[in-house]
Amino acid sequence: MDSGYNQVLAQLATILQQRKQATSESSYVASLYHKGLDAMLKKIGEEATETVMAAKDVAAQEDKSKLVYEVADLWFHTLVLLADQGLSHEDILNELARRFGISGHDEKASR
Amino acid sequence: MDSGYNQVLAQLATILQQRKQATSESSYVASLYHKGLDAMLKKIGEEATETVMAAKDVAAQEDKSKLVYEVADLWFHTLVLLADQGLSHEDILNELARRFGISGHDEKASR
Amino acid sequence: MDSGYNQVLAQLATILQQRKQATSESSYVASLYHKGLDAMLKKIGEEATETVMAAKDVAAQEDKSKLVYEVADLWFHTLVLLADQGLSHEDILNELARRFGISGHDEKASR
Amino acid sequence: MDSGYNQVLAQLATILQQRKQATSESSYVASLYHKGLDAMLKKIGEEATETVMAAKDVAAQEDKSKLVYEVADLWFHTLVLLADQGLSHEDILNELARRFGISGHDEKASR
Repeated sequence: MDSGYNQVLAQLATILQQRKQATSESSYVASLYHKGLDAMLKKIGEEATETVMAAKDVAAQEDKSKLVYEVADLWFHTLVLLADQGLSHEDILNELARRFGISGHDEKASR
Repeated sequence: MDSGYNQVLAQLATILQQRKQATSESSYVASLYHKGLDAMLKKIGEEATETVMAAKDVAAQEDKSKLVYEVADLWFHTLVLLADQGLSHEDILNELARRFGISGHDEKASR
Repeated sequence: MDSGYNQVLAQLATILQQRKQATSESSYVASLYHKGLDAMLKKIGEEATETVMAAKDVAAQEDKSKLVYEVADLWFHTLVLLADQGLSHEDILNELARRFGISGHDEKASR
Repeated sequence: MDSGYNQVLAQLATILQQRKQATSESSYVASLYHKGLDAMLKKIGEEATETVMAAKDVAAQEDKSKLVYEVADLWFHTLVLLADQGLSHEDILNELARRFGISGHDEKASR
């Protein structure tokens, strides 16, 4: 019943994979892949800073939409980095599941 | 069939919510809530930096487990921040779904 | 005898002050002042990330010029932030002098 | 006449050089050298984040001492990084002088 959320990261992973075939001109993600690792890392640094700034603004002004926007930007650019490195959200979710004793995919498979 | 991954963020959100009742001594997450916003933001800055460093190490040495670990740390601390602010992964996934024309929960509900 | 170095921060402070009168079109610094605090802070986050990346590259490749370049960028954008806030390198040097028991300007004045 | 400020960075460079002989137990700076590059870079990421947070607080509350403190921390940790890498404030000031057509030490020497 939570299937809407469930599929977002999986569908986004598919899109990020497809963009590896796209040209830099036609796709922002493709342009990041082509610029290479440092370009993605620079974005992660930027988006982390913007998340911090947005959270301070929330504390002062109470509009939370900017914080949601900046965390989405931060997550998005880590997803691009992961895709570039042959990794995905599944690796991150398994790591989080492992830490918290939550049943992730790896654990299910090994039962 | 992807239900292992699907539930990780939802289960983690439940855990982060429960930790609001815990003492700082018994829970790292509770200690972050009690220290307040700046403590969480400092962690996000730290983990973003460690993600950048781990990605540079991957480029030099090819062991990707440290990168997975640091991105998990970064995502985790943004989840703590979101929980503290009355938000959750659902807000982020809806925002990502909106941007990419993916069907998230809000969209499903409105059909 | 160290007067070359000595004057750099003082001369730069004068330049940053003068740019407050300039148009955004004629001066990068003026464009930062006009965009406001968040634009400067975003640059500080960016340049800190680029300093980290450059230092990791030095460790892998031994060319230190990129590290010098990025630290200069980071210092420069903190100087712009300070100028924007009515502060300067003097405040920072006095704070550093205070911490290390070094004789800074304030201390001299009070003798 | 500006000699108080002038000497702070030079004296601090001497101190940072001397700490290379100190034990980790006796000196925070020595402990950073011994922990290695990643420990210093992590501090730079942290202090950049704290600078951003302090600047946002200034915007909300107008007490500028915290901003001075955090920029001093940020500069300090870049100075430790530079010392560790066999570089110093002189390299940064020369780079800044070069960019702005200010007469730094290198330029004086070449006259």
